[in-house]
Amino acid sequence: MVTLKDVAKEAGVTATTASRALRGMDMVTPKTTQKVLAAAEKLGYRMNISAQSLRTGKSGTVTFLTAGIDGAYFSSLAMRFAAELNKQGMHMLIESSQYLVDEHGNEKDMSYLFSDGIIGINAKHASKALASHPSVLLEDYTIDSPYDQVNAPSQAGTRAAIRHLYEKGCRRIGLVGHDIPPESNPGASQQVRMLAAKHECQELGLEFDEHSLISVPWSRAGGVEAGHRWADERLGFDGLFCPSDGLALGVLRGLADRGVNVPKDVAVIGFDGITDGEYSVPTLSTIAVDFTSMTQAAVSLLTHRINHPEEERYPQTVTVGYRLIERESTRR
Amino acid sequence: MVTLKDVAKEAGVTATTASRALRGMDMVTPKTTQKVLAAAEKLGYRMNISAQSLRTGKSGTVTFLTAGIDGAYFSSLAMRFAAELNKQGMHMLIESSQYLVDEHGNEKDMSYLFSDGIIGINAKHASKALASHPSVLLEDYTIDSPYDQVNAPSQAGTRAAIRHLYEKGCRRIGLVGHDIPPESNPGASQQVRMLAAKHECQELGLEFDEHSLISVPWSRAGGVEAGHRWADERLGFDGLFCPSDGLALGVLRGLADRGVNVPKDVAVIGFDGITDGEYSVPTLSTIAVDFTSMTQAAVSLLTHRINHPEEERYPQTVTVGYRLIERESTRR
Repeated sequence: MVTLKDVAKEAGVTATTASRALRGMDMVTPKTTQKVLAAAEKLGYRMNISAQSLRTGKSGTVTFLTAGIDGAYFSSLAMRFAAELNKQGMHMLIESSQYLVDEHGNEKDMSYLFSDGIIGINAKHASKALASHPSVLLEDYTIDSPYDQVNAPSQAGTRAAIRHLYEKGCRRIGLVGHDIPPESNPGASQQVRMLAAKHECQELGLEFDEHSLISVPWSRAGGVEAGHRWADERLGFDGLFCPSDGLALGVLRGLADRGVNVPKDVAVIGFDGITDGEYSVPTLSTIAVDFTSMTQAAVSLLTHRINHPEEERYPQTVTVGYRLIERESTRR
Repeated sequence: MVTLKDVAKEAGVTATTASRALRGMDMVTPKTTQKVLAAAEKLGYRMNISAQSLRTGKSGTVTFLTAGIDGAYFSSLAMRFAAELNKQGMHMLIESSQYLVDEHGNEKDMSYLFSDGIIGINAKHASKALASHPSVLLEDYTIDSPYDQVNAPSQAGTRAAIRHLYEKGCRRIGLVGHDIPPESNPGASQQVRMLAAKHECQELGLEFDEHSLISVPWSRAGGVEAGHRWADERLGFDGLFCPSDGLALGVLRGLADRGVNVPKDVAVIGFDGITDGEYSVPTLSTIAVDFTSMTQAAVSLLTHRINHPEEERYPQTVTVGYRLIERESTRR
């Protein structure tokens, strides 16, 4: 039988180089690769497919697929998943989904994505990749999704935030956000949070109409704009609910630009529980999502799918808990 | 000649599944993989190694290797590289290096890391991976490094920051940081910046001794501690240089805790130019690194190494420019 050593000898390279060339791995020059392939063909070499991934059918790698990891929310979430997967003996790669589509709108070849499974958040442009792997989506909220979902407590958390503003004496609560979220951001959870806020206001008997929304982009810059409008247009809200901490931090800066005192003139609460809110001036009250449970639930759902590919299990949805953290921005 | 279709027929699966099983890709169950391998062996099938990566010797993928992407600095840098690589027709994966070592301190198998090259920042625990790929390191500063390096203007930028504080009337300048940086952070650039700050102070004829350093961990929490110590220990600095914006943002919060007015009581300047400094209260003066040049230089160096593997070129070092941005924290 022709061995790898024979191929290497024929090609005039080391066995390691020959193996790498045949597997298409590491740094082998095109010229060397061609030489090794020619030698393998000449000798009738049959690859000894013995890599762990072929023996077990698994690579031990999970892809964290997200439109972008900009900012504290996505990057800290990714690092939590890396830690949890490492605990489970797996390895994580981060893949940004925003470049998965070519100029004609076609999904690019993802054959290099050899992971055992995908954890996706806001992973647009990746339907093929998701469909061809065991996948768990975070913050998706799609009804009848074919994938397991793990969600933040967007409804319960939002209602708690509104009630908190109410208990702090707020009677005209404004919402900061936008009806049509930009592509690059978690639109689904935003919509769920906006609707829940509206319902809770109505339940508390508070005035709530189309003027209760300060419509700005879901970003820090959008938050700054909302803060400016609060002051410049004398909107009169005594409490502001921001469906993300990023937005809320922008609002605090926008209000500071106008010399507005938070929380005396207006109380502000965010949503997520990113660490940035501990360091802002004033510090930010927020609904802190239980990221530990979110990470563990998603990894547990995913590993079950990976280890039981034959099992026909309905998609599961897990919603994790939250903790209301009162800081300076609502302390009055 | 035995074809893939023959193998698929023998194994009772589709040609697509057979191909995936043979390549160890996508979601194929261990059972199916075994069946396909057995069929291939029985029929004497020889893999048609035709994947693009084997024809060209390249996968079109670059790995961004970093200890962690927590926080605004690393995550925004990663996204800039993803954009630049996409422009060059390549694709980026992010790999966290902190889990590359097993419990015995041995580097784990990285054979799945089939990228054409590596862009590494603070990529400890990855010497094998770096050595086996064309690699460019950011912020490394190692003398006689075998790798191309692209660095922030740590010396020139720091001297500009100190001069800025001096021109704003500061005569007792304090440095926030630590001599022995924690594992997970960019120690090299910190050391270069601390040394440059010391030299610039001496050149300006300012008092500078061991008491000029407020020694805290390189993190936002460390910055808060430095702010508290400024007030509680009456350190008397009228200007503070922080070698990272993260540290500086912590300092602003720590000073706010004690009711200190920035910049009236003490001026504060950071280093990096992350967007967070536009949103803090007060907004943060900083040395904004030219990240566009940094990204382009690193990608250009890397693609040259990838495309000319035969070329024996000395390691290159590129240092990019900066812009001093004056904001509220030093505006007086």
